[in-house]
Amino acid sequence: MPKILIVYATDHHSTEKMAQAAAKGAATVPDTTVSVKTAEETTADDLTAADGILIGTPVHMGSMDWRVKKLIDTVFSGLWMKGALNGKVGGVFASGGGIGGGGAGNELTMVSILNNFAELGMVMIPLPLCTPGYADGATQWGPYGRAHNHEGKPVGLTDAQLVTSFHHGANVARVAAALSGTKWFATPS
Amino acid sequence: MPKILIVYATDHHSTEKMAQAAAKGAATVPDTTVSVKTAEETTADDLTAADGILIGTPVHMGSMDWRVKKLIDTVFSGLWMKGALNGKVGGVFASGGGIGGGGAGNELTMVSILNNFAELGMVMIPLPLCTPGYADGATQWGPYGRAHNHEGKPVGLTDAQLVTSFHHGANVARVAAALSGTKWFATPS
Amino acid sequence: MPKILIVYATDHHSTEKMAQAAAKGAATVPDTTVSVKTAEETTADDLTAADGILIGTPVHMGSMDWRVKKLIDTVFSGLWMKGALNGKVGGVFASGGGIGGGGAGNELTMVSILNNFAELGMVMIPLPLCTPGYADGATQWGPYGRAHNHEGKPVGLTDAQLVTSFHHGANVARVAAALSGTKWFATPS
Amino acid sequence: MPKILIVYATDHHSTEKMAQAAAKGAATVPDTTVSVKTAEETTADDLTAADGILIGTPVHMGSMDWRVKKLIDTVFSGLWMKGALNGKVGGVFASGGGIGGGGAGNELTMVSILNNFAELGMVMIPLPLCTPGYADGATQWGPYGRAHNHEGKPVGLTDAQLVTSFHHGANVARVAAALSGTKWFATPS
Repeated sequence: MPKILIVYATDHHSTEKMAQAAAKGAATVPDTTVSVKTAEETTADDLTAADGILIGTPVHMGSMDWRVKKLIDTVFSGLWMKGALNGKVGGVFASGGGIGGGGAGNELTMVSILNNFAELGMVMIPLPLCTPGYADGATQWGPYGRAHNHEGKPVGLTDAQLVTSFHHGANVARVAAALSGTKWFATPS
Repeated sequence: MPKILIVYATDHHSTEKMAQAAAKGAATVPDTTVSVKTAEETTADDLTAADGILIGTPVHMGSMDWRVKKLIDTVFSGLWMKGALNGKVGGVFASGGGIGGGGAGNELTMVSILNNFAELGMVMIPLPLCTPGYADGATQWGPYGRAHNHEGKPVGLTDAQLVTSFHHGANVARVAAALSGTKWFATPS
Repeated sequence: MPKILIVYATDHHSTEKMAQAAAKGAATVPDTTVSVKTAEETTADDLTAADGILIGTPVHMGSMDWRVKKLIDTVFSGLWMKGALNGKVGGVFASGGGIGGGGAGNELTMVSILNNFAELGMVMIPLPLCTPGYADGATQWGPYGRAHNHEGKPVGLTDAQLVTSFHHGANVARVAAALSGTKWFATPS
Repeated sequence: MPKILIVYATDHHSTEKMAQAAAKGAATVPDTTVSVKTAEETTADDLTAADGILIGTPVHMGSMDWRVKKLIDTVFSGLWMKGALNGKVGGVFASGGGIGGGGAGNELTMVSILNNFAELGMVMIPLPLCTPGYADGATQWGPYGRAHNHEGKPVGLTDAQLVTSFHHGANVARVAAALSGTKWFATPS
C-alpha cells in the first residue's frame, strides 16, 4: 500500500491548489494513501513513512520559498547521513509569476529541490511532453503554474496547470508503487 | 575604443535576428566597434580582441547548441589557463520554442554559457526587469526569444524580443567601455 | 531482458574507463545486456532499443563535451516529439580536472544531461551517499572522476572513482529492469 | 566613497570567517567602507545603501541556508519591482563539507544566489583562475571553503580558502568603485 506525501508552501493558494490536484492524481493509483502537508507541518516521520514525495513551491527571486528551504535544512538533511529516503520516488512542481515569458527562475527552483532528492538517493520523476495539459502548464522538471500573466498581472491558474499537477501526482505514485519495498541501490557490503 | 563581439548559432534565423538587434544596441554606445560572427567562424583572436562578448544560442533539449559548445571546448577553453579574457564583460541570450509556457530549458542554457564566462574570469551582465520589452522577451539571465507559441507552433519573434536584445547589447557595451583597459581582478604577486 | 546503453565521449580515456566500469556494474544485473558506445557512433535505434541509458562526459568549461551535445541535438532531440524514450531510466557521470577543489563545473554539466533526460520523459537515477567509493568519486548527481588533482596536475582516476561508476551502472540497470515494459506516465486519452 | 556590504549565515563559523576575510579584502580598496552583517540582521536600507554586495552561505543539501533564503524572499524581493539594486555589483561565496570530492552542491548553491542578483539587475563578479589561493579554495562562481575533508570529517578551513575570500572581496569592491554612481542599464524612456 504505497504512501504518497505532498509537501508545499503557498502565498496566495496557487501552489496549494497544485498540491491538491497532485493529491487527486496520486489517489487514482490503486491502494495508494495520500497526505498533503505544508512545509511547516511536515516531520521526519512523515518523510520516512512515504514511498513517494512531491514538493511544490512558489518561485521567489529564482529559487524556492524559504519555508521549503527551512524544511530541507532542518528535517530532510537529518535523514541524509542515515540514507533514510534512499530509493524513494520524488517529483517537484512550482508556481510563479509570468513577467518576461521565460519562466522567471522556475527551472533552477525545481532543480534545486531535485538536488535535495538526489542527495537523499531518491529516484526523480520528470514531466513528459505527452502529459495532458503540458502546453499550458509545464516544464520538463515538473508542473509550472502561472498565477500571473507575462506582464505580472494576477490571472489565476489555468485548468491545464492543474491537469499537469494531477498527472504528475499520478505518475509519481505509479512509479512509487512499482519501486516500493525493494532496495534498489548498492550499499557497502 | 571598446570592441564588442557578438557570437551566435542559429537554426531558423531567430537567434541571428537577436544577434543583429544586440549589435545595433551595442553600436549606440559612443566609439564602440561591433562585430557579429557565427560560432563556427569565431577565432581566439576575435575573443581576445574584444572588450565585451555576447553569446546567443538556440535552446536544444535544455542546453546550448552544439556549435556554440564546440566553440567553447575548442577555442574559449584554450584561453582559460592563460587568463586571456579576465575582466572582460559578457552577456548571453537565447531563443527557443514555447511548449509548456515555462521556458523550456532556457534558464540552464543561459547559465551554462555564463559558466564559461565565469571560468574565464569575465564580469557577467544580467537583464534588469526595467529593460524596455522585458515583459515579452526576457529572463533575468538575458533576452529570450520565442519563435514558437506555447503549443510549439512557429509564430516568429515579437518586436519586444528584439528590443530586449537591443538593450542587452547596449548594456554590455556600456559596462565594457567603463571597465576596458584596467586590470580589475587580483593576480599572484 | 533489459538492455542498458552506455554512451560517452572521452579525451584521455578517463570517461571511457568510467563507462567500462559502469558497463561491468550493469552486467551484474541478471539477464541484462549491455552495450558501450561513443557519442559519435550512437544512433536513434540504439537509444530506442535501450531500457536504461547512462551518459558520461568530460567537463569542459563547466558543461558537457561538444560531441555529447551534438548527439543530443541531432539524435536525442528527434525522439523528443515522438516520446520514444518516455519512462526509460537514465543516469549520468562525468570526469574532470580538480583545480579549485570545488568540482569545477561538474554539477551543472551533469544537470544539463539530466535535463535532456527530463525533456525525454525519463526516470532519473541519483548516486546515493551510501554507494561504495562515494567519499572519493562522487556527487549526488552521478560518479565524478578526477583525473587531475586540485592543482590541475594529471594523477589518473582512483579506484574509488571507478567503483562508484560500477555501482551507478548496476543501480540504473536494476531500476531499468524493474520499470521495463510498462507505460508509467500519463498520455492523452 | 563606495560601500560594500557582506551578508552571511553561518553554522560553525566557517562562512563567517570567509565573510571577515572578504571584508578585509574589500577594505583594501581606497575610500571603501565595509560592513558585515548576518542574513538575519540585514535590512532593505543596508542593501540600497551598498554599491557592492557579497553573500555567503553554508551549502545545505545542495542549496543555500534557509536564513539567506528568508532574507531574499522577505527583503531582497521587495526591492525587485523598484529596481532599487540595478547596476550594483554582486559576488557570492559558500562553505561546505567535502564528501564525494565533487563539490557537493556548492555550484547550484552559488548560482541560485547569483540568480537573485540577476533578477535585481546586478553586475555579477566571478572568481578568476588567476586568483591567489584558487587551487585550494575556489570555484568559478566564487570562493568555496571546505570545513570538512572528502570523508566528511571536520578539518577546518585552509588559509587558501580565506585568501580567495579576501581577493573576491577586493575584486567586488574594485569593480563596485568603478561602476558606482552611474546608471548603466537601459530603462523605459
